[in-house]
Amino acid sequence: MRTETLPVESEFFAPRAAIDDLLSSFLTERAQTSEVPGQSALVLLLRDFIDGGKRVRPLLCVAGWRAAGGEGDPAQAVRLAASIELAHACALVHDDIMDAADSRRGRPSVHRQLADRHPLPEMADRFGTSGAILVGDLALVWSDELLHTTLMPDAHRVAVLRVVDLARAELIAGQHLDLLTTGDLDVSMETALTVVRYKTAKYTIERPLQVGAALAGADQRVLDACSAYGVPLGEAFQLRDDVLGVFGDPDRMGKSHLDDLREGKCTSLVVRALRAAAPAQADRLRALIGDPGLDDPGAAEVRDILTSTGARADVERMIEERYRQALDVLDGAPFTHSAVRTLRAVAEAAVHRTA
Amino acid sequence: MRTETLPVESEFFAPRAAIDDLLSSFLTERAQTSEVPGQSALVLLLRDFIDGGKRVRPLLCVAGWRAAGGEGDPAQAVRLAASIELAHACALVHDDIMDAADSRRGRPSVHRQLADRHPLPEMADRFGTSGAILVGDLALVWSDELLHTTLMPDAHRVAVLRVVDLARAELIAGQHLDLLTTGDLDVSMETALTVVRYKTAKYTIERPLQVGAALAGADQRVLDACSAYGVPLGEAFQLRDDVLGVFGDPDRMGKSHLDDLREGKCTSLVVRALRAAAPAQADRLRALIGDPGLDDPGAAEVRDILTSTGARADVERMIEERYRQALDVLDGAPFTHSAVRTLRAVAEAAVHRTA
Repeated sequence: MRTETLPVESEFFAPRAAIDDLLSSFLTERAQTSEVPGQSALVLLLRDFIDGGKRVRPLLCVAGWRAAGGEGDPAQAVRLAASIELAHACALVHDDIMDAADSRRGRPSVHRQLADRHPLPEMADRFGTSGAILVGDLALVWSDELLHTTLMPDAHRVAVLRVVDLARAELIAGQHLDLLTTGDLDVSMETALTVVRYKTAKYTIERPLQVGAALAGADQRVLDACSAYGVPLGEAFQLRDDVLGVFGDPDRMGKSHLDDLREGKCTSLVVRALRAAAPAQADRLRALIGDPGLDDPGAAEVRDILTSTGARADVERMIEERYRQALDVLDGAPFTHSAVRTLRAVAEAAVHRTA
Repeated sequence: MRTETLPVESEFFAPRAAIDDLLSSFLTERAQTSEVPGQSALVLLLRDFIDGGKRVRPLLCVAGWRAAGGEGDPAQAVRLAASIELAHACALVHDDIMDAADSRRGRPSVHRQLADRHPLPEMADRFGTSGAILVGDLALVWSDELLHTTLMPDAHRVAVLRVVDLARAELIAGQHLDLLTTGDLDVSMETALTVVRYKTAKYTIERPLQVGAALAGADQRVLDACSAYGVPLGEAFQLRDDVLGVFGDPDRMGKSHLDDLREGKCTSLVVRALRAAAPAQADRLRALIGDPGLDDPGAAEVRDILTSTGARADVERMIEERYRQALDVLDGAPFTHSAVRTLRAVAEAAVHRTA
C-alpha cells in the first residue's frame, strides 16, 4: 500500500514514526546490551530488515484501537503495533527461506546476507538458512515480549491475546496451504481463495484491526465489524497484488514480473484462466507458469492468455465486489466517525493502487 | 535424564501423565477442528513428535512451582509446563533443520518425514525444510496460547512472562553461538562454556524452575536460588552429555558416537584436549573431528586422545565441581523440604547417568 493515495499526514499514518522509533530503539538497545558473543550482529540484521517495512499491519492495529474508541496517548497501541510488526518480520524471514528468495525490499534476504558473510562457500547456504531461522525465531520471541509488556486492563488482555494467538496460527495454516499448492495448477478457486483469506485477508487486515480494537475494549459487535470489513478488503488487496504481479509496472513494483510466474504460484488469476482457456492455451499456460527459465516474451504470452480468457477482467470484478462489500460494512459499522473516514481511504488505497 | 536413577513414582515424575494428556488432547483437538486443508496432517506430525520427549523441562517447571510453595491442584503449573514443552518442540524441530539431522528420538526428523511425503524428489528437501519451519513456528505459537491461557494472579503473570521471554531469547543466542562455533576447533573454553550455559544450563534447568516458581509467586530469593542451583547443574548435565556422546554406550544412548564427532561440535572435552595435546596429537584430533567420513576406528582414536591428554578426567572434575555446587545451594535454599529432596535426586540423575 503506497502512501500516494492517502495524504501522509492523515490519521492513519500518524503513528508510523512512533512505531518505527519503538522498534528501532528496542532492537538497538538489545544489540548494545547483548551478553552473548555474535548476538548483536544478528539483532542489527533484524533491525535493518525491519527498517524497510511499510507498516500496514501495525498501522491497522492503531486504526482498530481508534475505531473502537481508543483515545488520548496511543503509546500502548503503538507498543502492540510494534509487537505485530516483529511477528511479521518472523513470517517474512522464514517465508524467504521457504521461497528460496534472494531479495526482499530491494535488499538481499536475511538468509542470503548471512550466507554471504560465511567464509566457506560450501557451508554458506546452510549457515544462511540456519541463521535466518534463528533471526525469525528471535523476532517472534521479542514480538511476545512487546506484547507481554503492553499495559492493558485484564479483561482487554484476554481478548487481545486470543486474537494474537489465533492470527499467528491462521497465518501458518495459510502458508502451509500455499506451500502444498505451489506448483500445482489444478487447485480449485476455493483453495486459491482460502490461501488468500488465511495468508493475507485475515492476517494483514482483519486481525491487526481486531487486536487494536480489543486493546480499546471493543465489544463483539465491533470485533465482528472488523472482520466484515477486513476479510473482503484483505482478499481484494491480495487479488490486486496478484494482478499487479503480472500486469503492474515492474519499476513501480520494485520487482520483475517473472518472480511469481517462475515460482508457479497458483493465483486466482491463473485458476480462472485455466478454467476458461481452450486446451491449447491451457497447455501453454501450464508450460510457462512454474518454468524457472521463463523469459520476458514468455511472461508477455502469459499476460495475453490471462487477458484473452477473460481471467483478468473476472479478477478485477472480484476485487471490485469485495471493495464494495468492505465499504458497505463501513456505512453501518459501530466505529468512530473519524475511523470510518480513515478506513474508507485505506480501502481505496489497498485496492486502487498501481504498486 | 533416564528414569532408572529416580523412582518413577516420585514427586518429580508425578505430573508427567497430566502434562502428556494436556499436550495430546490439545493437539488432537486442534487437528480435528482445523478448517484449513492440509493443516491437520501438520498438527498430527507435531503431536507425534512431541510424544517422544522426556519432559525434563516441564517436569522442572512443576518442581519449581512446588519448590516455591505451590500447593493443591497443579493444573495451572501443568498447563505452563505443557507450554514450555511446545516451545521446546519448536527449538528441536528448527535445530534439526539447522543440523541437517535425519533422525530425532529414534524416528526420522520432522523435515525428513515431510520430505519423504513429497511426490517429487527434486522438490522434496525444500518442501521438508519449509514444512518443518512451519511446524516449529506453530509449536511456538501454540506454546504461547497455553501460556496465555494459564490462570495466574496478575503479579505472578508479570514475573512468569518475564522469565519465559528471557529464556527463549537466551536459547536463540546460545544456538546462534553454537552455529558460529561449529566446525571451529579453536574456540576458547570460555566460549564453549557460554554455549553450554545458554543452550542448556539456563534453558533446560534454571529457567523452567524459575517459570514454575514465578507461577507460585516466588520472591527474588527463591528465583535466585533457582539460578544458583540450576546453572551449575545444567552445565554439569551438558558436560555429562558431551562425555556420553563420545564415551557412552551407543545402545543405551540410542545414537552412534559418530554423530557429534562428524559434526565437528567443539565440546569442552575437545577444547581441553586440544590445549593439552602434543602437536602431533592435536593434528590428529583436528583431522578426525568434523570429518563427515569418520569411522569407528577413527572415533576410537579420538577417545584415546581425549583420555591420554587428561581431557576426560578434567571434564569429569568440572562435572563433579558443578554437581557439588548445586547440592550446596540446595542445603540453604528457601525451597520446601520435599522440593529440596526432589531436586537433590534430580541433580544426581542429571549428572551420574549412563545414557
